[in-house]
Amino acid sequence: MSNQLYDLAEQLEKAIRACHDFQQLKQAYEAVRQDEMAYRLFTNFRDAQMRMHEKQLTGAEIFPEEVEHAQKAMILAQQNEKLSQLMALEQRMSMLLADIQRIAMKPLEELYRSFMETE
Amino acid sequence: MSNQLYDLAEQLEKAIRACHDFQQLKQAYEAVRQDEMAYRLFTNFRDAQMRMHEKQLTGAEIFPEEVEHAQKAMILAQQNEKLSQLMALEQRMSMLLADIQRIAMKPLEELYRSFMETE
Ligand SMILES: [Ca+2]
Ligand SMILES: [Ca+2]
Repeated sequence: MSNQLYDLAEQLEKAIRACHDFQQLKQAYEAVRQDEMAYRLFTNFRDAQMRMHEKQLTGAEIFPEEVEHAQKAMILAQQNEKLSQLMALEQRMSMLLADIQRIAMKPLEELYRSFMETE
Repeated sequence: MSNQLYDLAEQLEKAIRACHDFQQLKQAYEAVRQDEMAYRLFTNFRDAQMRMHEKQLTGAEIFPEEVEHAQKAMILAQQNEKLSQLMALEQRMSMLLADIQRIAMKPLEELYRSFMETE
């Protein structure tokens, strides 16, 4: 990789680590980790999501009880204040990272689009 | 988004646009665009890939003839010098972008990993 790109990627890494949104997210994870109930609700929710996701990827049958269980786990997680806070911060961080990605990928996107338009 | 992150994303965009790999890729696309045969082989290949990909996403049946057609289109494309050049440059660009992504995503990756490890 060119040194300039490598340097910029590392600067971006440091800036993400230092930014307010990331620091808040880190604190929210810490708060969940130190709260037995929040932590259990979170892992239940995440494990249910992951099991369903794996089944989707492998094309295995997802039973109605599993969907119901995952929905219940999500509702219980959302009702927990520390977890609803964590999820809101996760979403904000996702949007921020998607913005960065969108800006940095513009050259490629333009290249493909201009190639398509010539058809 | 914080101004610093926004600025770095824009610097990264400019650096990608200016880098040697991107300029070579752009020239390779231009060379294909100006070569009737290469262009036709490329669009045949890409259209066959896209049809199969859409079917995969929607779960529609993919017929053996379609797989065969896509394979033939790929072989024909790879045998074209301008297209094999384009594909090699595409792959190099993908690896470069994956490197950038991996570096910039380190803070999040570390955050999730340290949370998981506490289980
Ligand atoms: Ca504990
Ligand atoms: Ca033409």
